[in-house]
Amino acid sequence: MPQKPASFAVGFDIGGTNMRAGLVDESGRIVTSLSAPSPHTTHALEQGICDLVEQLKTDYPIDSVGLAVAGFLDPECEVVRFAPHLPWRDEPVREKLEKLLGLPVRLEHDANSAAWGEHRFGAAQGADNWVLLALGTGIGAALIEKGEIYRGAYGTAPEFGHLRVVRGGRACACGKDGCLERYCSGTALVYTARELASHGAFLNSGLVEQITLDPNALTGKMITTAARQKDPLGIAVLEDFSEWLGETLSIIADVLDPGLIIIGGGLSSDADLYLDQAVNHYSTRIVGSGYRPLARVGTGQLGGDAGMIGVADLARQSVLESI
Amino acid sequence: MPQKPASFAVGFDIGGTNMRAGLVDESGRIVTSLSAPSPHTTHALEQGICDLVEQLKTDYPIDSVGLAVAGFLDPECEVVRFAPHLPWRDEPVREKLEKLLGLPVRLEHDANSAAWGEHRFGAAQGADNWVLLALGTGIGAALIEKGEIYRGAYGTAPEFGHLRVVRGGRACACGKDGCLERYCSGTALVYTARELASHGAFLNSGLVEQITLDPNALTGKMITTAARQKDPLGIAVLEDFSEWLGETLSIIADVLDPGLIIIGGGLSSDADLYLDQAVNHYSTRIVGSGYRPLARVGTGQLGGDAGMIGVADLARQSVLESI
Repeated sequence: MPQKPASFAVGFDIGGTNMRAGLVDESGRIVTSLSAPSPHTTHALEQGICDLVEQLKTDYPIDSVGLAVAGFLDPECEVVRFAPHLPWRDEPVREKLEKLLGLPVRLEHDANSAAWGEHRFGAAQGADNWVLLALGTGIGAALIEKGEIYRGAYGTAPEFGHLRVVRGGRACACGKDGCLERYCSGTALVYTARELASHGAFLNSGLVEQITLDPNALTGKMITTAARQKDPLGIAVLEDFSEWLGETLSIIADVLDPGLIIIGGGLSSDADLYLDQAVNHYSTRIVGSGYRPLARVGTGQLGGDAGMIGVADLARQSVLESI
Repeated sequence: MPQKPASFAVGFDIGGTNMRAGLVDESGRIVTSLSAPSPHTTHALEQGICDLVEQLKTDYPIDSVGLAVAGFLDPECEVVRFAPHLPWRDEPVREKLEKLLGLPVRLEHDANSAAWGEHRFGAAQGADNWVLLALGTGIGAALIEKGEIYRGAYGTAPEFGHLRVVRGGRACACGKDGCLERYCSGTALVYTARELASHGAFLNSGLVEQITLDPNALTGKMITTAARQKDPLGIAVLEDFSEWLGETLSIIADVLDPGLIIIGGGLSSDADLYLDQAVNHYSTRIVGSGYRPLARVGTGQLGGDAGMIGVADLARQSVLESI
């Protein structure tokens, strides 16, 4: 009996610095992947995407292409309205790329893509109503309800990163101040570390020495590494972060009341440093605490590949639905 | 040709002080209504509900009974888990009342009931994805998506009233501080008026005189009435309220991204005093302002009857679905 030929979809994760393309099979496995710097003009970016697909096409049969985009799309996922780190502005990206590539193309928001990956092949398989909270440079979020991505009326839901949680708080790149992602993200770790270091305590901290040497070189990774090595400033920063994450989980539980919250994004690999504390805090912060079940909280299984895997699967499904 | 006999459902709005029962026809019209004080024990409350239904039954054929409850229900709407102003605690109210009444009974959260009323017969007819924001003593909210009530996994979504918006802010009855409903509700008007009056300004304000005379007698209604009469403190309180309502609308838009937000509850009848200002503020506060459509914002059409009308319709539908 002849074997059914393998079907591959390419999933793109397009960041402000680099873009990655994963060749994904039907079971959500990344067979191979490529990456390249993200060009900064519309034309070069679209050409760059085509080049990576061409490279993958030489060795594999490709049915469809998916793009996980960090930005606002329209609810039909045809147009990239605005993506802060990408050149597209109100651009009908899906149609343009479909013509350029000669293949079916599917666009999706990056957090929705990652959530779809975990829903189909990762930590959220079988969950009926759940939220992905992606913690990286900022905060991304997605709600999967009854097996579908919740988009709201205009395709931008759910956004938690720019809720004001501190009046007159830390200035945000969005133009407001006190936004949640200034307190609960990888960037927030750096802010908190600098603030705490400036108070003059933590004298026996190697992290303080690093900050004094070059405050701009500080990264979230340095802080989590320091916390692992019991650096007192590192520990204090993670404690602050845990409390803010607890607050964030309680906001999600009050507003969306999901059965499960999955932590994804770059910070999820350090969840052992903060998640138990955050969940404890969360359980005391929700309204009606004690009279309602708590959402389970866990971490993603697909790590940084969740977006590529998810959007490749969505691309494949779009093709099947259109047949 | 014989006329189709009229079908009536009774919709209850059960508050901490009084309960009202409306006899509602198929078109959402309240034909007649009764009210009585809300008893404070489980047994007396259930008996009181039966008494009102008995009175209505003497004159009208009744098919079903709906109860709009201000509290947490389970997602199947069988059990009242906790209602701060009612005696039920983890009580299987639906089944109990069905046995007592000998009629099909439907429970629903009060904000969901009011939203259903506006969805079927009021300001939200034809809207696909929209939020009811009920402003009264506290904040109630409901999300209707694709013609269905969004409940979350455990039946408590969406709750906005106890999100912390001011760290170390006004103490809340829930045990936390800085909760949104301490800044954006009828109760909030009273808090803000007392705070502003205590600053010693507004010397030519009749409202300040009233507060000095008896601060505990102050009500939200007195404040909106004073604002209408151009009392300077009344105006200042409404300005503060408008800003907080703008903030609240922006939270709803960021998290749920609805196409329409309907203001309901007791304060909605004074919307001309604050809504335009609130919408202006809201439009500047959402993330990605300028790159996404704004939700329309309006007021409900059914006023304080929305809950009774909505839950009566839900009760009628439950009967039809079970046939």
